[in-house]
Amino acid sequence: MMSNMIEALQQQFPEQRHLQPFAGANHATPWLDDITAKHQRKLCADLEEAIRKSGLKDGMTISFHHAFREGDKVINHVVETLARLGFKDLTLASSSLMTCNAPLVEHIRNGVIRRIYTSGMRGKLADAISHGLMKEPVHIHSHGGRVHLLQSGELKIDVAFLGVPSSDEFGNANGTSGKSRCGSLGYAMVDAHYAKKVVLLTESLVPFPNMPASIVQDQVDFVVPVDEVGDPAKISVGAARVTSNPRELLIARRAADVIEHSGYFKNGFSIQTGSGAASTACTRFLEDRMKQQGVVASFALGGITGSIVDLHEKGLIDTLLDTQCFDANAAASLATNPKHVEISTNVYANPSAKAACCDQLDVVILSALEIDTDFNVNVITGSDGVMRGASGGHCDVATAANLTIVVAPLIRSRIPTVVRQVTTCVTPGSAIDVLVTDHGIAVNPARPDVAERLQKAGLSVMSVEALYQRAIALVGEPKAIEFHDRIVGVIRYRDGSVIDVVRQVKD
Amino acid sequence: MMSNMIEALQQQFPEQRHLQPFAGANHATPWLDDITAKHQRKLCADLEEAIRKSGLKDGMTISFHHAFREGDKVINHVVETLARLGFKDLTLASSSLMTCNAPLVEHIRNGVIRRIYTSGMRGKLADAISHGLMKEPVHIHSHGGRVHLLQSGELKIDVAFLGVPSSDEFGNANGTSGKSRCGSLGYAMVDAHYAKKVVLLTESLVPFPNMPASIVQDQVDFVVPVDEVGDPAKISVGAARVTSNPRELLIARRAADVIEHSGYFKNGFSIQTGSGAASTACTRFLEDRMKQQGVVASFALGGITGSIVDLHEKGLIDTLLDTQCFDANAAASLATNPKHVEISTNVYANPSAKAACCDQLDVVILSALEIDTDFNVNVITGSDGVMRGASGGHCDVATAANLTIVVAPLIRSRIPTVVRQVTTCVTPGSAIDVLVTDHGIAVNPARPDVAERLQKAGLSVMSVEALYQRAIALVGEPKAIEFHDRIVGVIRYRDGSVIDVVRQVKD
Repeated sequence: MMSNMIEALQQQFPEQRHLQPFAGANHATPWLDDITAKHQRKLCADLEEAIRKSGLKDGMTISFHHAFREGDKVINHVVETLARLGFKDLTLASSSLMTCNAPLVEHIRNGVIRRIYTSGMRGKLADAISHGLMKEPVHIHSHGGRVHLLQSGELKIDVAFLGVPSSDEFGNANGTSGKSRCGSLGYAMVDAHYAKKVVLLTESLVPFPNMPASIVQDQVDFVVPVDEVGDPAKISVGAARVTSNPRELLIARRAADVIEHSGYFKNGFSIQTGSGAASTACTRFLEDRMKQQGVVASFALGGITGSIVDLHEKGLIDTLLDTQCFDANAAASLATNPKHVEISTNVYANPSAKAACCDQLDVVILSALEIDTDFNVNVITGSDGVMRGASGGHCDVATAANLTIVVAPLIRSRIPTVVRQVTTCVTPGSAIDVLVTDHGIAVNPARPDVAERLQKAGLSVMSVEALYQRAIALVGEPKAIEFHDRIVGVIRYRDGSVIDVVRQVKD
Repeated sequence: MMSNMIEALQQQFPEQRHLQPFAGANHATPWLDDITAKHQRKLCADLEEAIRKSGLKDGMTISFHHAFREGDKVINHVVETLARLGFKDLTLASSSLMTCNAPLVEHIRNGVIRRIYTSGMRGKLADAISHGLMKEPVHIHSHGGRVHLLQSGELKIDVAFLGVPSSDEFGNANGTSGKSRCGSLGYAMVDAHYAKKVVLLTESLVPFPNMPASIVQDQVDFVVPVDEVGDPAKISVGAARVTSNPRELLIARRAADVIEHSGYFKNGFSIQTGSGAASTACTRFLEDRMKQQGVVASFALGGITGSIVDLHEKGLIDTLLDTQCFDANAAASLATNPKHVEISTNVYANPSAKAACCDQLDVVILSALEIDTDFNVNVITGSDGVMRGASGGHCDVATAANLTIVVAPLIRSRIPTVVRQVTTCVTPGSAIDVLVTDHGIAVNPARPDVAERLQKAGLSVMSVEALYQRAIALVGEPKAIEFHDRIVGVIRYRDGSVIDVVRQVKD
């Protein structure tokens, strides 16, 4: 019967010859014949089982997200397990690396990790790499640029190990339920999309369906229940903090002045403030001005803090587009506020995406370790030439927003922030519009319109050269950092091009 | 400076030779230098502009979704426009086709459409195809099976034309805001994922960000504002209706009896009822039993009706996983109830997905045009051999669910529904557990456990053979339908295999 039918089909339509006859209701889905397999086919007893099943081999690429920032308990644990299992020559592609990742030094030394792609690094790991630990240079990318590298195929993730606060047995996962809530899984969403195999490490295994889900079952291969994936209390350590430092508050108030008079401060404007202390403080100064002038923002973008959530809940910002919750208040809001929306870093800032939200942004406040007289910004290397920061969304948003403001103290620990030439260029000066320091405001000469509006409003605008001269006058020209020729880091611009390199520092 | 750096990099690491030097902040994103382009690069003045920009050529594949069912105003409009522009030999891949698509007959005749993939068809189009209109047979797939064909590469969508109630200029779209709300865009989400180019036709162009979005900006190439995309009042025409027919109510009550005593009716069970009149009515009979016995369902799946929403809002079903809203109440619920969650047909039922929700399902109620004494089900061809139905999620859910119940009247218009052999097999009998008719209940011999439980509960269970004999006794053996040899339809099982063919009917 079946064979007659197929024969007739092939006779009448030879181009249908590839079609196979029906071979049983569950021929392609054998797990449906086994009630245990049906429910548990993705569940692994432990990480080692998931690694084995994932097909990971020496030389392949593994990936991680950094939503837990300094509280992450997945990256070190997985790499340690891989080391114990004897893996070698792996490429580590984490959306970023932190001080807590110091144990990776040993695994790089032992050959477990051969290559690194990351948005940044800090602490002992960054120090060791800056001093020549690795045979190959680290690739530093932006958040949007990371997705570009995945999309272009330069970076191919073989196995993503993604820690999640909660998942069901099918892999529907989110960061808003469970014990340790990190909030948005915006970084991990990209890995779940691009990785050949996706392993979820989940702190809570909850009943199906764990929906709505940030990472969805059709992206997930294996689910491993683990004791802990991260400590949310440590998310705000380092990058994201609330300040009472008077200098930072001064800068924050000035930045609010700039925004108010920039020409972009009107009903429906949009803003990204990032996680820097001054930029977070600026949010609070904006609140009064928004209320006074009846200005409601259409959206806030990027990393979301409790202070941004506060404005949202007061009706001053309509929608929050969130790639990373910077604190527990933000995570709690994501769980409950319907217009607090999780977005992937692809949707956030990939220059090669069909659209990136940063392209819609009016105002962004960014920080800098150094900014030079051409407005080029360094957010990677410290004044000793050692890596201690992250590219993040800096260059993505800087070039996309209509008004890009860098906030920085003129001098830090007797070292000028405004310099003749940045040690490492992460974001090109052409993408920066205004520099706000505690000693004055400088506007990029490419934006005379903004300069004019600020001057009209009575803000004192000076040249970036004058700021530089003031810094030099106060603390003198800093001694040049001594580097070896050897390149230890490649700074990739968001489109994948090389905008700078980092050389090995001399001891 | 830049060239020195790249030279040093290439000297030290020859394997990095492919890396390009930085060439300007907006080298890869030229639209960021143009405030109009930045906002409007996806917007098209009209459909013709979008077609031109999409790169559509003769012989390519176009796709559509059918969330508006009989109210759809996109499919005919787009195909008519393509005909006017002179396109030929297109493959039409719509998630389904309806009575309203009768105008396609002309475009098939004129060579605009050469091939069709669809879940089903009705009315004049189905009649003409059943009578030999097309040179190539139509491929009839299930909802899950369609995604399998996309995943396997047999079906490659060149351009998806997706009608949406609302979108912003970047293509963030949903079916829950705007004037004509269809609710879930579960079918369209798949096309947005797989199509090479995605054109949104939107009835409302709303300010960015239209989030949360069902179709997200990073999936969308072009956005065309149009006058109308569909009439939501016509979604419930045909397939989905509420019955007061006493025979249907009898069947519905019996189905509720079966569910109650099947062994699957306990706290946390899950259910799919589909859009048939009897199965929708069954929902109401279940309500009392759930309340009496303190049973709360964990989730309802698939097409969602107002009666399912009613149970959800009464706290009797925890989560709704929705691929298609069958009425305005369902669409309204999707917009407001946080645990009413939109899912794609990939997540719903693709056998090749990393997980399909139907695999978690306890109980499903399905309909049938015919069911035979081996429990094989026909939901495509009528008693005259002409196509008049749709595969839908029938075979997907039938084989995946723990208890699959088919509800059908024993006789329709003096034609038996229970037959010796179905005219067309869509769902294999091995996937069906229980048949509920107005003349009695039959249990598949493969499920003695279920038969035993029903008998213990005092339900009268008979053999399917006895039901067949009763039908014959009442209306006699129906006259065999006369067919030509020529194949006009290929019935694809969910895994892509050929489970049956449909032959051209003799006039």
